[in-house]
Amino acid sequence: MDFLIIGGDAAGMSAASRAKRNMPDMNVVVLEMTRDVSYSACGMPYNIADPEREIDDLVVRQADVFREKQGINLLTGHYAEKISPQDKIVTGRTIQDKPFSFSYDKLLIATGSSPAVPDIPGISQPGVMSLKSLDDGRKLKSYLTENNVNKAVIIGMGYIALEMCEALAARGIQVDMVKPRAGLLPWMEQGMSDVIREELKSKGIGIYDGHKIEQIQKTDSGLSVICSDMELKGDMVITAVGVKPGSKIAEDAGLKLSIGNSIAVNKQMFTSDPHILAAGDCADAFHIITDQKTWIPLALRANRAGWAAADNVCGQAIELPGIAGTAVFKVFDLQAARTGFNAKEAEKSGFEPVEVTIKSRSRAHRHPGNCPVWVQITGDKKSGRLLGMQIVGKEGAAHRINAPAVALHAKMSVEQFVQTDMAYAPPFGPTWDPMLTAANQLLKKL
Amino acid sequence: MDFLIIGGDAAGMSAASRAKRNMPDMNVVVLEMTRDVSYSACGMPYNIADPEREIDDLVVRQADVFREKQGINLLTGHYAEKISPQDKIVTGRTIQDKPFSFSYDKLLIATGSSPAVPDIPGISQPGVMSLKSLDDGRKLKSYLTENNVNKAVIIGMGYIALEMCEALAARGIQVDMVKPRAGLLPWMEQGMSDVIREELKSKGIGIYDGHKIEQIQKTDSGLSVICSDMELKGDMVITAVGVKPGSKIAEDAGLKLSIGNSIAVNKQMFTSDPHILAAGDCADAFHIITDQKTWIPLALRANRAGWAAADNVCGQAIELPGIAGTAVFKVFDLQAARTGFNAKEAEKSGFEPVEVTIKSRSRAHRHPGNCPVWVQITGDKKSGRLLGMQIVGKEGAAHRINAPAVALHAKMSVEQFVQTDMAYAPPFGPTWDPMLTAANQLLKKL
Repeated sequence: MDFLIIGGDAAGMSAASRAKRNMPDMNVVVLEMTRDVSYSACGMPYNIADPEREIDDLVVRQADVFREKQGINLLTGHYAEKISPQDKIVTGRTIQDKPFSFSYDKLLIATGSSPAVPDIPGISQPGVMSLKSLDDGRKLKSYLTENNVNKAVIIGMGYIALEMCEALAARGIQVDMVKPRAGLLPWMEQGMSDVIREELKSKGIGIYDGHKIEQIQKTDSGLSVICSDMELKGDMVITAVGVKPGSKIAEDAGLKLSIGNSIAVNKQMFTSDPHILAAGDCADAFHIITDQKTWIPLALRANRAGWAAADNVCGQAIELPGIAGTAVFKVFDLQAARTGFNAKEAEKSGFEPVEVTIKSRSRAHRHPGNCPVWVQITGDKKSGRLLGMQIVGKEGAAHRINAPAVALHAKMSVEQFVQTDMAYAPPFGPTWDPMLTAANQLLKKL
Repeated sequence: MDFLIIGGDAAGMSAASRAKRNMPDMNVVVLEMTRDVSYSACGMPYNIADPEREIDDLVVRQADVFREKQGINLLTGHYAEKISPQDKIVTGRTIQDKPFSFSYDKLLIATGSSPAVPDIPGISQPGVMSLKSLDDGRKLKSYLTENNVNKAVIIGMGYIALEMCEALAARGIQVDMVKPRAGLLPWMEQGMSDVIREELKSKGIGIYDGHKIEQIQKTDSGLSVICSDMELKGDMVITAVGVKPGSKIAEDAGLKLSIGNSIAVNKQMFTSDPHILAAGDCADAFHIITDQKTWIPLALRANRAGWAAADNVCGQAIELPGIAGTAVFKVFDLQAARTGFNAKEAEKSGFEPVEVTIKSRSRAHRHPGNCPVWVQITGDKKSGRLLGMQIVGKEGAAHRINAPAVALHAKMSVEQFVQTDMAYAPPFGPTWDPMLTAANQLLKKL
């Protein structure tokens, strides 16, 4: 059987490896447009933070290992341009501009996502960069050194923007962040978002939310981000305003699209064409709370969906359950984590959300090193169901969030969650874990 | 209504506070034999570690607050000696040896647990101490200073023994640990137990497991713990060989006892007498996995059971679900956590356990600060059910354990657990959380 995969990142390479493990005789071909496969994209900001580290340090497995040890026909520098579903053929061009054509029995689209490019005059000029591929990272890192960047402006304030902010600050670069919409992290509970804002301010970061960006201009000494009411200067500008799914090739092939133009897939990762699957950032998913379609591109899901796609190509009938949208990020000394819905999202999905935010402590009463932990919890007034949680703190936020994530998968009520037997020792939390305290408070309002 | 409570620690004071909140007019009387209530017993080792901290620092709420602000008739120095269930009367003696007698409509026994005293000649002499009450902590802390302790022997290697070991080492005291049974932490997977052993050795702690202790002798310079095949000298000896439930008063009253002589209670915390409840370390519980009786004295359960007891006394019909035995402790730079059953316990409960142990990393590929994380996972071959997990590592073990704990409450299968949407960011773990990697490995064997 010919299993063709477009895209050699998390989902694509997971699928290729899994398919060869399942069926060693299968002809597995991967078309990757860049020259890099299997690298930790999420690790880029942390690598960029350290001038001593090589960017290639992020490569988890070399291309040759896939080829020689796993027998995957991995073709880098191969840009797939067109799928012909009737003929079951994919055509494209190599990096040397040579045309190619591959037929398939089953095709997996794992084209990932790409940074959304804000519609701002001057966005394409030198010194304005974004971060997605390893090559973007390479270029950005070289730029920092070669241009002796001392001051940078980041457009956007999402996870990647915040991680890049920290990375640049670690290199002694002064950073201003700017975006048109007011609110640092609008999905986050206001008080907790303010905690993060204070953390950024305390590290000397300029936070300018609610400023319409009109253009990026070249100046004598660098670049200037001109807003309707102010101007921010820097040696470079990084845009990090979110990502969009790499679904154009699927759309052109007549495949059904879904939320945010992601590729619509069923629980077995099949698209609207029975011979074509999609997995990773380019594809949609079902939400664990509602079983409705959602699009939340995250790395674990990409790996998991790649596996599931391969299993289904190999004749198993694997259904992936939904996703909870569990995510975590670091902002200087703070950890911020979320899972499930906030009140606004819950309301949109037809729930009657009630939420509570509490401030607890990371360690037991008077334990040395104690610091605040904030927990926001959302439940449904009608059913009593747990709908989501957010945690912010200097310690214990990142790994705590997995507990409510599991509870969402189990469709637990707040009442059930509040009775779960959590760990306690003085160095790691109060007797009542902050998550339980939040749930206890919420229970009173349900 | 007269609600009488024996014991003013976690369960007793939780119950008293909750009862007064539920029904402000209720006459709530608490008989506490010591002069301390509402203190963090688990925090004692960490307090002892620091000569500068006052032991009274561990008191979370002063007795007067309970009396004046909450209207609880809190009587310290009141030792309850006897319950007369027919007359619904409790009698006893105060610290000044004055007899007292209280009648009740409902009685809560919250007598906690006390350190098991090993049967070793010489165990009662000065300089041999154990740790349970705040007064024990007070005495131990004074002893360290007044006797200029430089070397200590700890009998036992459980949580408290290990925490005390770290506390003494923090004060520059050289520590040897000894116990008759071989194996540092016999419930823990061997390889992970060895990781903890190495950590202790690297901190200069002497670990002597599998040495029968014959007697403790006074010497010219201090004390000597004499084993059948060796001798350990110290300025003091601490025994920490586990705890036993404070169930004598219940036994004498004819109440039904349970595992390890704990007081048998139903899910509403009622004992075999319909007017008497029990909660906290003195009472048993149902295990979440089997719904069978178990006795695992832990602080969160004590608080929760105190609340539930009060709610039931106040006429609500609150049933507590089972416990998972989720626990965590710190050993120098290591965190160790567990929930549910290990293979041996699972087998005893009629399961066909399969287990896997993996070594993963605390952070993403090549992320700075990366260190090993070990995860042991147990599942049932017959049903595919998740039965338990253990995690050891320098970071991320303590809070991760709550996720499988929640999964145990939800009676998840390993297959369901493996699909849960966990958080990922490079500073906090690999893309596949170590718990998921362990579950993936286990799935292959189920």
